[in-house]
Amino acid sequence: MKLFWSSRSPFVRKVMVVAHETSLVSRVECVRTVVAPTKPNADVMALNPLNKLPTLLRDDDRPIYDSRVICEYLDGLHAGQKLFPAAGEARFEALRLQALGDGILDFLLLGLSERVRPETQQSPDLKAALDVKFTTAFDALEREAKAFQSGPLTIGHLAIGCVLGYADFRYAAKAWRQGRPTLAAWGDTILARPSYKATEHADVY
Amino acid sequence: MKLFWSSRSPFVRKVMVVAHETSLVSRVECVRTVVAPTKPNADVMALNPLNKLPTLLRDDDRPIYDSRVICEYLDGLHAGQKLFPAAGEARFEALRLQALGDGILDFLLLGLSERVRPETQQSPDLKAALDVKFTTAFDALEREAKAFQSGPLTIGHLAIGCVLGYADFRYAAKAWRQGRPTLAAWGDTILARPSYKATEHADVY
Repeated sequence: MKLFWSSRSPFVRKVMVVAHETSLVSRVECVRTVVAPTKPNADVMALNPLNKLPTLLRDDDRPIYDSRVICEYLDGLHAGQKLFPAAGEARFEALRLQALGDGILDFLLLGLSERVRPETQQSPDLKAALDVKFTTAFDALEREAKAFQSGPLTIGHLAIGCVLGYADFRYAAKAWRQGRPTLAAWGDTILARPSYKATEHADVY
Repeated sequence: MKLFWSSRSPFVRKVMVVAHETSLVSRVECVRTVVAPTKPNADVMALNPLNKLPTLLRDDDRPIYDSRVICEYLDGLHAGQKLFPAAGEARFEALRLQALGDGILDFLLLGLSERVRPETQQSPDLKAALDVKFTTAFDALEREAKAFQSGPLTIGHLAIGCVLGYADFRYAAKAWRQGRPTLAAWGDTILARPSYKATEHADVY
């Protein structure tokens, strides 16, 4: 399988964390790829009209995306403990938590896009709103974090781990650990897993 | 179940279309809700720290989000033909198509946010990039549309129907039907389904 990959994308990292957790990583060939909202990448566009990472070209040459779909696909390819519970409340709790993680990543990425605009084109209102959102979302994670420690590891936990890793990478000044001891302790444990250690962000093309 | 709802959200519409297609609509109480990036809604925030629609409060008072999770949840509550195929290639094709639809809706919404900024805070580069993305994505849908006509209806088709309905609602000037006859014919058929007729967008609070 060929994964259109970048060391800077938290959604790519989620896929790679899953590839490690499911012992499929040797079957995934990472293709270093640059996509930008203003610069369509023809190789990606031919497979995914959204021009986004991650995009996975499967062994039968059919593409799938986005990260949620790729993660569920990978989880179907191994015989170990499943990251997507098969059904019932366990499944919907894992999917809800993944949606929370992905939603936080979406606004962290929106905040980055805003910061790289020319100064005059930046919106003070939006930046203020995103600051509020950061605090609210991380406070909510602190309240939820106790429950993260019980039960088997799911795609929900892995998505939240990617949020914490991305906050360290791009929002270090926000110091999310401060005043959030339960989340900080859980976060340090998950980020110490080999799957995260092997997939740390780097700010290179 | 209580759905935090707005007539303007295409992701809420996707959930409501699924509620109609699965004959669950009488069990869903819609709560008219206003959320805005710069105005957190306390009722929504208490259940979903992302402050986003759709959010579903289930009968046991546990919330789930986002639209994908809610749609899969509803699909598990009825005994008819499933919109989420259970496994295999049919499932991943449906999920890929849903991801494509959701991804298009994401950038249509981003384009709207851009248009409502004060003129000086708008980015001509971003607007130009979104114009290119619109053309590329709808051209890709035209190429895929022939395949939409075969096989059972899935969440993928329903997501694309929501894209077309939202383009009619917010991007009428783009005239997406022009030069895309296969997509136009399929789109007119799906938008004529009772589930879409019952859930048309309206620009009111």
